[in-house]
Amino acid sequence: MHAANPDVSFEIHAREGAARTGVLKLGRGAVRTPAFMPVGTAGTVKAMYVDQVHELGADIILGNTYHLMLRPGAERVAALGGLHEFSRWQGPILTDSGGFQVMSLSSLRKLDKDGVTFKSHIDGSSHRLTPERSVEIQTLLDSDIIMQLDECVRLPSTPADIERAMRLSLDWAERSKRAFGVQPGKAIFGIVQGGDVPALRVASAQALADMDFPGYAIGGLAVGEPQAVMLAMIETVEPHLPAQKPRYLMGVGTPDDLIESVSRGVDMFDCVMPTRAGRHGLAYSRFGKINLKNARHAQDPRPIDEASACPAARDYSRAYLHHLVRANEILGMMLLTWINLAYYQDLMAGMRAAIAAGGFADFRAGVKEAWARGDIPAL
Amino acid sequence: MHAANPDVSFEIHAREGAARTGVLKLGRGAVRTPAFMPVGTAGTVKAMYVDQVHELGADIILGNTYHLMLRPGAERVAALGGLHEFSRWQGPILTDSGGFQVMSLSSLRKLDKDGVTFKSHIDGSSHRLTPERSVEIQTLLDSDIIMQLDECVRLPSTPADIERAMRLSLDWAERSKRAFGVQPGKAIFGIVQGGDVPALRVASAQALADMDFPGYAIGGLAVGEPQAVMLAMIETVEPHLPAQKPRYLMGVGTPDDLIESVSRGVDMFDCVMPTRAGRHGLAYSRFGKINLKNARHAQDPRPIDEASACPAARDYSRAYLHHLVRANEILGMMLLTWINLAYYQDLMAGMRAAIAAGGFADFRAGVKEAWARGDIPAL
Repeated sequence: MHAANPDVSFEIHAREGAARTGVLKLGRGAVRTPAFMPVGTAGTVKAMYVDQVHELGADIILGNTYHLMLRPGAERVAALGGLHEFSRWQGPILTDSGGFQVMSLSSLRKLDKDGVTFKSHIDGSSHRLTPERSVEIQTLLDSDIIMQLDECVRLPSTPADIERAMRLSLDWAERSKRAFGVQPGKAIFGIVQGGDVPALRVASAQALADMDFPGYAIGGLAVGEPQAVMLAMIETVEPHLPAQKPRYLMGVGTPDDLIESVSRGVDMFDCVMPTRAGRHGLAYSRFGKINLKNARHAQDPRPIDEASACPAARDYSRAYLHHLVRANEILGMMLLTWINLAYYQDLMAGMRAAIAAGGFADFRAGVKEAWARGDIPAL
Repeated sequence: MHAANPDVSFEIHAREGAARTGVLKLGRGAVRTPAFMPVGTAGTVKAMYVDQVHELGADIILGNTYHLMLRPGAERVAALGGLHEFSRWQGPILTDSGGFQVMSLSSLRKLDKDGVTFKSHIDGSSHRLTPERSVEIQTLLDSDIIMQLDECVRLPSTPADIERAMRLSLDWAERSKRAFGVQPGKAIFGIVQGGDVPALRVASAQALADMDFPGYAIGGLAVGEPQAVMLAMIETVEPHLPAQKPRYLMGVGTPDDLIESVSRGVDMFDCVMPTRAGRHGLAYSRFGKINLKNARHAQDPRPIDEASACPAARDYSRAYLHHLVRANEILGMMLLTWINLAYYQDLMAGMRAAIAAGGFADFRAGVKEAWARGDIPAL
């Protein structure tokens, strides 16, 4: 798909409306789209063995440059053979640029036109990220999809602030792409910014399209705005992104966000929601979101979902999960994270199959109806 | 082995010195001895899936009556089908009596001749344990080996205190056995007390032997005394326990404790050490105990033990484990707990095979030599 990377390709096999299903081929393996990437923040998808993540059907996971550059350090990961060798995840890995978490996690950050200087939230040490250094770190990690450094503003922000950050991100997009150079089997994605201002979103998308990236992300959403605003921005951007390139909506989202975004042409997602919720007593299911801390589950011998293929959702009673969550047992986090990632991957597989069969509209309606009906009645 | 329980038996297949190997058959399955029982405090062996525990070769696990009676409650577990159904552990389960943890964990406890009244460490609620109620709770949990309620004194204590507690424990042994009655496929064990006073240990063992229990535990050790005192007490007690009945050393211990105790005739063990250490960055191995927090592992691509059959010990670099421990990642606890339980089970399997082959003395010497050599040299 990219002249310099003949070994990277994106094939779209079927479409229904704006939704599409296909395969993104990278040197390390194929990613079936629409795809949900479990988040492996610091070299581990929290509370999961790496083999489990693979067995759930995840083709690609995400690593966080900010966390990994601070601990254990990009050069150290490189010396140990890269992030795949380090974590034993054999499939493709996408890494973010680090910019988003510099803004959300670090202390004393200072942005300039060349990059950002910040202090580590772990030990207060000083670090600097520039577009070139971010690409270098991601290359040291041996990432398969590298993200450009960008500046992501929180919403609401003033149009002037949003435009300034969007223009800076475009400059950094060019610098990132240049720094990436030619890396066989790997890809770099540009990131559309522009907040909730349609004209800025369009300008960003068009400018990035002119730079001819192998893939495009939509950034700066799910940062506090209502879902309707997020979906409107996707609709605004979609016609201006090259139709034959993958589209990745960063940091999104709920199961409903995923279905609605796929129906608007998004191909890839990442989000901490299923893993984080799993560590806080919450299960995602075809019955909606279930709070295992709730007393209604304390004596319930039924599983989360007897029809699930995930042993954690099918074989353990709600009463047991309730007990583990109440007792703050690690196994509770392990089982609920497993349940949630299984549900997310099943949802993506369901969308892929439905689009391929021309039944996505029905699938979407059926899934949303089941959520609306809610959980099975209490005993 | 017990007239009232023809479906419970203990067969000794081979002996070497005082060490022996055999099989304890219970209604729910066979326990190969010497056996190490992983501790499943609150209905879960912490940070492990139940299938993993089974696959490591554990035939039996331990549950803590104190924790389970407080949360989720014995009657609730019974209503949910018992502890096996609740936790999905299909093999035998031994439960302790609750007495030890009442003394170590609860607040405001008051002991009398009939039992002990205490306040929960979780919510301050009042509870009472008597010999009869302890057996009732363990029966509600559907435990396969029920332990008598006893009073365990910390060491050092005065001989008078030790004797008083030992006599009380003998009285409670009789009451516990009467309360147990006849339970097909299940067993109740009496507990030898007597602190570090040989004459009291002998008196306790003889009185319990006269009561004809299906099995005997040695309690009140590993409570602060040196290893030499513990081993001396085992040697003191051993000739007075029925040779054809299983002997269980409670709450022990380090790998060296296990080898030394097996060589003195002990058949069963439980201890939180491998699981707790795994949650604190420590690995047990044939090279001894390894502290993964140590900086020497930070850049070490080698696994804990390349010859181990445990994937966690064999496939992950020390550098990765070091990183996970430093970052306080749940996966670090999962992998290290797995490594430690695998090592403990391998050690027990090694002892069983060595005794069966008449090579236990050599096995013991070889294992201890390897520990003495210590870890592989740093890179």
